[in-house]
Amino acid sequence: MSHLDTLRAAVGELHVLTDADAAPYLTDWRERYSGKVLAVVRPGSTDEVAAVVRVCATAGVPIVPQGGNTGLCGGATPDDSGRAVVLSLQRLNRIRGMDLDNDTMEVEAGCVLQTVQEAARDAGRLFPLSLAAEGSCTIGGNLATNAGGTQVLRYGTMRALTLGLEVVTAQGDIWHGLRGLRKDNTGYDLRDLYIGSEGTLGIITAATLKLYPAPIARCTALLALSSVEEAIAVLTLARRGFGASLTGFELMAGDCLKEVVRCFPQQRLPFDSASAALPWYALLELSDSESEAHARERFETVLGEAIESGSVKDAVIAGSMAQSQALWHLRESIPLAEKESGKSIKHDVSIPVSRMATFVRDTNHALQQAFPGIRHVIFGHLGDGNLHYNVARGRDWSEADLLARQDDVFALVHDSVHAAGGSISAEHGVGQLKRDALVRYKDPVELALMRSIKHALDPRGIMNPGKVLAAAPA
Amino acid sequence: MSHLDTLRAAVGELHVLTDADAAPYLTDWRERYSGKVLAVVRPGSTDEVAAVVRVCATAGVPIVPQGGNTGLCGGATPDDSGRAVVLSLQRLNRIRGMDLDNDTMEVEAGCVLQTVQEAARDAGRLFPLSLAAEGSCTIGGNLATNAGGTQVLRYGTMRALTLGLEVVTAQGDIWHGLRGLRKDNTGYDLRDLYIGSEGTLGIITAATLKLYPAPIARCTALLALSSVEEAIAVLTLARRGFGASLTGFELMAGDCLKEVVRCFPQQRLPFDSASAALPWYALLELSDSESEAHARERFETVLGEAIESGSVKDAVIAGSMAQSQALWHLRESIPLAEKESGKSIKHDVSIPVSRMATFVRDTNHALQQAFPGIRHVIFGHLGDGNLHYNVARGRDWSEADLLARQDDVFALVHDSVHAAGGSISAEHGVGQLKRDALVRYKDPVELALMRSIKHALDPRGIMNPGKVLAAAPA
Repeated sequence: MSHLDTLRAAVGELHVLTDADAAPYLTDWRERYSGKVLAVVRPGSTDEVAAVVRVCATAGVPIVPQGGNTGLCGGATPDDSGRAVVLSLQRLNRIRGMDLDNDTMEVEAGCVLQTVQEAARDAGRLFPLSLAAEGSCTIGGNLATNAGGTQVLRYGTMRALTLGLEVVTAQGDIWHGLRGLRKDNTGYDLRDLYIGSEGTLGIITAATLKLYPAPIARCTALLALSSVEEAIAVLTLARRGFGASLTGFELMAGDCLKEVVRCFPQQRLPFDSASAALPWYALLELSDSESEAHARERFETVLGEAIESGSVKDAVIAGSMAQSQALWHLRESIPLAEKESGKSIKHDVSIPVSRMATFVRDTNHALQQAFPGIRHVIFGHLGDGNLHYNVARGRDWSEADLLARQDDVFALVHDSVHAAGGSISAEHGVGQLKRDALVRYKDPVELALMRSIKHALDPRGIMNPGKVLAAAPA
Repeated sequence: MSHLDTLRAAVGELHVLTDADAAPYLTDWRERYSGKVLAVVRPGSTDEVAAVVRVCATAGVPIVPQGGNTGLCGGATPDDSGRAVVLSLQRLNRIRGMDLDNDTMEVEAGCVLQTVQEAARDAGRLFPLSLAAEGSCTIGGNLATNAGGTQVLRYGTMRALTLGLEVVTAQGDIWHGLRGLRKDNTGYDLRDLYIGSEGTLGIITAATLKLYPAPIARCTALLALSSVEEAIAVLTLARRGFGASLTGFELMAGDCLKEVVRCFPQQRLPFDSASAALPWYALLELSDSESEAHARERFETVLGEAIESGSVKDAVIAGSMAQSQALWHLRESIPLAEKESGKSIKHDVSIPVSRMATFVRDTNHALQQAFPGIRHVIFGHLGDGNLHYNVARGRDWSEADLLARQDDVFALVHDSVHAAGGSISAEHGVGQLKRDALVRYKDPVELALMRSIKHALDPRGIMNPGKVLAAAPA
């Protein structure tokens, strides 16, 4: 039998896609990477995933696991050798169960994030992970990249929201690690090793996730600011005044919001001309477990302090759920507006908060010196020290002009991040996009440890080769 | 040169201890394990730790890392071959720095936990890890065992409080991973792999820890209850009512508190005779970032609901910091009272909260059937699903009677934990004590993955051999 026939025997003929049927799986969301495959395989159960892996391990066929195909670093796109299979987890999309007294739920890797959020909400709970792609990204992809998003400040990244995993190893064995325990010190932390490993050590097929009580009230405000320093001063006030009720602190450059309003005219910036011209904005969110009145009083007290201290120049407090959604919608539309305006160069970086303002000022300056006219598209999760420090082509540049400068821009920004003690991938992962940069910035001892682990768990090198780490020589 | 001479050259003669000088390092705190060594080596810097590891790696000398020697599973005690060295981290005890705008501090592995707590407090911050041994346990030991304690419900275990590590590998290289970043997705999560690995993969020499705003007010109450079910009902109310302000929920069997009061007559149970006879108590703590008045009002509202619902039979609310400390002191004295009463058999288990009440009832019953007269010493962190489900000898038993039954008691309790989807080590780790039990209860695929990682990172098997996993055959 050919490899294709063996795969068809494992998952059924309908679920081995080739040619045109395979095409949607072979290009990433940003249309930066495109590849070829032997086939796209869509197993329908954990046992079928294990069967596919065993077939591939025996035949030496590389496997590229894929969830919702919304990744930003090409981690789920095959190379152009045509030797690999894409293993899509989309058919593993059952919510297996909920344990409300334990505040946990068990879900399969192919569940769409929004479906999981909604199931939690229907049960009177909160599953806090929230990010722009939530309508199509999957839990498996969220786990593979340790996804972040807008609620990390309070609830942590996907890692912090996960208690147990079910994993198919590179040998095609199944590790049954779906524990609903908040404490478990029996040996090495394999869970966190698989989370964030981008499919290079095995395939996550299901997870036990933490649930939280749904907040009783939420308050949201959009703040107008004149500097990053001011944003940090407000963040400090909010941390102290709100404690764990501070659930969102998003920083946005004024240029980003102007671009949103230009691209999507049904949206508007709720400030008059003076405040609408300020260079920075922050979206502030408090979640309260007490009452609407208490939330509001507390929110206004701290915001009052911030205005009095001079850090906040202007503020709009959402008066209704609809207004709050409109403010969040502005923030969430930034990546879409960015895409509308053509290709951009994205840097998903983190910096200690104490060095953030200097980083932004110095890096902006250095970029303008080196590439006059380049445009800054800066937004992100200031509360976590995470910025999407993106750049777009200058007004009179072609897309090709930007792409020609791409490697130099990457190097300048990443050098600057590295000098500030930061990370060149805060929440998007490494994939193909940052694989070579990793070698430049990572401690060589750490890289050697990573390679040892890769070799130990995937000695044949069939799990998503060439992602995160360079493929071992054949 | 002999191995000893080489070690003396690496750290100075004064810091290589043998004979009587070595003795205090060779027996664990519970006096369950005792071993022999070539020497105890006390390096004074990370470079010296690396030098010691290189000497040992070359000579094939096993290394047993040790912090405050307060572990409960024999993880830091050498075997009796006399071939190993104990590598004490106690001289690496500097707080290297604080970054208050980033809410982080950098500390060496030998810092005593309480020193770190106090340094944070002096800077107006909170380092939340808190446990009975805090006056003598070290940060390195806390990391090696992923320590838990009384604040996990709100702040997580040591893992959740750590951002970066400095590690000396089994080859004697130094991994410089002291990052102060809340988000960093550049490759495999080595940090969490080293945390909880009990010195079997390398030696943690320093860490970057998270700081939190110090709460403005705290409220504490001792609740009298008639069942575990009632305790869980109150926990559910408190979670919903307090949200993230719920910082403590400790369950204690009445017998534990009676034993405390008997052993330490200066302490007292603050209830009259009826409530003092109830079988269960819970210590409830709320931490507020708003005000004393707000904390108190909120605390009393939720407590009022709990009393009205019938779940709480009686309650004492601390009226002052001193009274609050007295209540916590009752809780913290349980292990000391337990030790006063002679050896006991300890089980540090976690269970999904939803199965906790049934677990306690069924396991108590099965133990009494099998070992009539055996005494239950049950307390722990109910909010985390973690119980110290200990047992002590019956009134008319000798210590030998208890120890003779030890293996059967372990097996009965751990079988029951396993059947309830729980873990046989929630926060103490594995060490020597639970190494063989691990093989009995752990998924064989998971064990095989652990062995692969051990072999990949410590191919010579010199790092704390025989702890967590059986030593590989020579």
